[in-house]
Amino acid sequence: MSLLIRSSYLSQSHFQPRISKPSSHTNQTPSKLVFLSSFNHNPLVSLVDKRNPTMQPPTFTPSMTVKSSLIDPDGGELVELMVPESEIKLKKKESEAMPKVELTKIDLEWVHVISEGWASPLKGFMREDEYLQSLHFNSLRLKDGSLVNMSLPILLAIDDDTKEQIGVSKNVALVSPQGDIIGSLRSVEIYKHNKEERIARTWGTTSPGLPYVEEHITPSGNWLIGGDLEVFQPIKYNDGLDHYRLSPKQLRKEFDNRQADAVFAFQLRNPVHNGHALLMNDTRKRLLEMGYKNPILLLHPLGGFTKADDVPLDVRMEQHSKVLEDGVLDPETTIVSIFPSPMHYAGPTEVQWHAKARINAGANFYIVGRDPAGMGHPTEKRDLYDPDHGKKVLSMAPGLEKLNILPFRVAAYDTVEKKMAFFDPSRAKEFLFISGTKMRTYARTGENPPDGFMCPSGWNVLVKYYESLQEGDDSSKQQQTVVSA
Amino acid sequence: MSLLIRSSYLSQSHFQPRISKPSSHTNQTPSKLVFLSSFNHNPLVSLVDKRNPTMQPPTFTPSMTVKSSLIDPDGGELVELMVPESEIKLKKKESEAMPKVELTKIDLEWVHVISEGWASPLKGFMREDEYLQSLHFNSLRLKDGSLVNMSLPILLAIDDDTKEQIGVSKNVALVSPQGDIIGSLRSVEIYKHNKEERIARTWGTTSPGLPYVEEHITPSGNWLIGGDLEVFQPIKYNDGLDHYRLSPKQLRKEFDNRQADAVFAFQLRNPVHNGHALLMNDTRKRLLEMGYKNPILLLHPLGGFTKADDVPLDVRMEQHSKVLEDGVLDPETTIVSIFPSPMHYAGPTEVQWHAKARINAGANFYIVGRDPAGMGHPTEKRDLYDPDHGKKVLSMAPGLEKLNILPFRVAAYDTVEKKMAFFDPSRAKEFLFISGTKMRTYARTGENPPDGFMCPSGWNVLVKYYESLQEGDDSSKQQQTVVSA
Repeated sequence: MSLLIRSSYLSQSHFQPRISKPSSHTNQTPSKLVFLSSFNHNPLVSLVDKRNPTMQPPTFTPSMTVKSSLIDPDGGELVELMVPESEIKLKKKESEAMPKVELTKIDLEWVHVISEGWASPLKGFMREDEYLQSLHFNSLRLKDGSLVNMSLPILLAIDDDTKEQIGVSKNVALVSPQGDIIGSLRSVEIYKHNKEERIARTWGTTSPGLPYVEEHITPSGNWLIGGDLEVFQPIKYNDGLDHYRLSPKQLRKEFDNRQADAVFAFQLRNPVHNGHALLMNDTRKRLLEMGYKNPILLLHPLGGFTKADDVPLDVRMEQHSKVLEDGVLDPETTIVSIFPSPMHYAGPTEVQWHAKARINAGANFYIVGRDPAGMGHPTEKRDLYDPDHGKKVLSMAPGLEKLNILPFRVAAYDTVEKKMAFFDPSRAKEFLFISGTKMRTYARTGENPPDGFMCPSGWNVLVKYYESLQEGDDSSKQQQTVVSA
Repeated sequence: MSLLIRSSYLSQSHFQPRISKPSSHTNQTPSKLVFLSSFNHNPLVSLVDKRNPTMQPPTFTPSMTVKSSLIDPDGGELVELMVPESEIKLKKKESEAMPKVELTKIDLEWVHVISEGWASPLKGFMREDEYLQSLHFNSLRLKDGSLVNMSLPILLAIDDDTKEQIGVSKNVALVSPQGDIIGSLRSVEIYKHNKEERIARTWGTTSPGLPYVEEHITPSGNWLIGGDLEVFQPIKYNDGLDHYRLSPKQLRKEFDNRQADAVFAFQLRNPVHNGHALLMNDTRKRLLEMGYKNPILLLHPLGGFTKADDVPLDVRMEQHSKVLEDGVLDPETTIVSIFPSPMHYAGPTEVQWHAKARINAGANFYIVGRDPAGMGHPTEKRDLYDPDHGKKVLSMAPGLEKLNILPFRVAAYDTVEKKMAFFDPSRAKEFLFISGTKMRTYARTGENPPDGFMCPSGWNVLVKYYESLQEGDDSSKQQQTVVSA
């Protein structure tokens, strides 16, 4: 219901990104993009991509021609699992004869994630050896003995009936929630889905009320199926936001086009307020001071499953575009794109995934804040995770050594200066902390936040969204009244 | 009650190890042993200590003089945390002025474990950065960037009052359950004890009924204290078994004395039956076939906390000594010693600890069976862990690459040959599987197991133990009757 109402103020014009030249990706479908054939390792990357506070930027000399100075993807090569155009017909025909596995909406989000290489070097849903390494060590060992980070198990569950239908078949076809065969899983391995153990080790709790668990794991089958993924077409959602969904390869191309010598990623699932903007602009300033010539911000909102009381993706994207239109963030040095992963709210375990996936998209700096991917404990009056554990775990995680972790400086509303500013403990009383919950309460009740908290046009997007919810509630109440009358 | 009755058939004579010459450790207190001053790295170790099925033993040439060919301890140097004799008086006096932390029996077992270097390179109870790495990655990163395995968090919990008493003090004194100051923890760090998260991530469940959790974690305080450990004296239990408690340093000396060129460790917390013996003897045979000249077995029963229905340590040690007396295992090539760690029953997480600790004692081969460190699910009718996960996780664990993992071949009672033999699936019906539970039922009911299951003198130890329990139960029932009358 609310989605229907919200869509009334969604028009394509709201979503014209204003990230301007040379933003070759806008209004271009991925199939029209000319990809770089490879992302070569740049030996200079190793000079800068160390978790080292004294890191130095690369020194370019006129004689050097560098195809890409971006950080290497995990495993050295970006995974892409699209069937080549010339084979699609044959492969589709093959798949029709295979046993079928029906995907949920979240399964499809994972197919999207894996097929574009966000989880490189993972080439499909995890087989048991990958699952166990992810679950116990938050990392995968490669053939050369090195480790890549892999903190979230990426799994496809099937039920008893599906398992029986598969029998001893080596390959299965994957069927979207719309009923289309979208690809296949090859050389499959089926193993037990111990949900209790998976949940306990991933979330550090088995409490009821974990959004991803209730939405996706509890209703799922008792078996897991791993194998090598192939998809026939890039995954599209046809929700008017697909042009924001750049793959790691497309992002890398865009960073190269802009001649980025540093890419800093900002993961979010909330509207951008001026405190976020201050932090992002300050990060760029610090990178310039370090000697980088052209640091590019990847503003990278999460686009997959989120919990019911989070602000929906379409509203967030409209809000973000206003922030760029208003010049709060500089369109010249910012790329806004959607990160297709579903959200786990698994705190220190999940923040590693958020960081690792951005390496694959070319980011060598990652901004991490208080309680990343955290939430309140579902049944107790406390944060589910220690708010400091996320950044601590991230800074020690195996496989993320090459990523520079930038801890968030705390921003709050300075009631004297009347703007968002970095918190100064020496005059703590003059600062006002506005949490996500408080921000949503302001928007829901129609109360204005203090001046300077968010650009007015961005704020307006939120107010409209909550108004539409209200209308939705009212009309659904009315409907209910009619039904019950 | 049962302990009292059991002690009636414990006499020192039962526990004279028969591992004979050159068993310099028998009847010798640790203080009398002359330790090797260091365990030098032997470059040949790297030739054999690879997880490689085609591994080759070292080739000794007459000109080579090798002080120790044993595997290096984790971190390169064995940790030992005894205060030097000359400083004990001063340190004891210092500690009397420090805030006190009272240890439980299990805390003291951990002091024992840490102080002798089983957890090398860990030098005390974990500080938060070590805890988080252990909890999330099952490993610790060293300063040189390498990883050592550390799957179980080794923690000391304190309550609110103790935390308040410590205040800003840097050092605390550790007080044994008997009331003696046994050492100190220096440069302490106090941080929150989130029991739910610790339990979920360590056991993969938060189900009630986990023995270590109920005995040790649930009653413990809400804070953890980490720091550098110092102990004044080696930890002793005065239970007639201390001579079996060889430290990693003492074991390494003993292996060197015997000129071991391979050490294979067998962890157990159950009586040794002929299936175990077959496996251990077969392992030695395989190592000889590989070209090793003198593989030594470390038969290494766990000596710390175990659950109530496990066979107690004193009974097990008596049973093990009978197995050696009867020649089921060869005393010349076997060392029996007690591993002082408490038992977690944490399956795949714990088996890594069991293996890692044995590296520190000089073992380069580790035998792993079905469902290591596993148990039944406390509230559901199934194994808590997938019985195959232990050996899979062990074989992939970071920091254990240098250890050779030897998967258990399944032994069962061959009803045709009337002896324990490796299971032959082609004549499955002729094999009888005798589980630990079944074995205990035999012993409890006075029924004899099939001939050839266990040496008669070893079996007799178990029968006597269960008889004593029965008497204990009867007398406690009688007592109860008296009380309630």
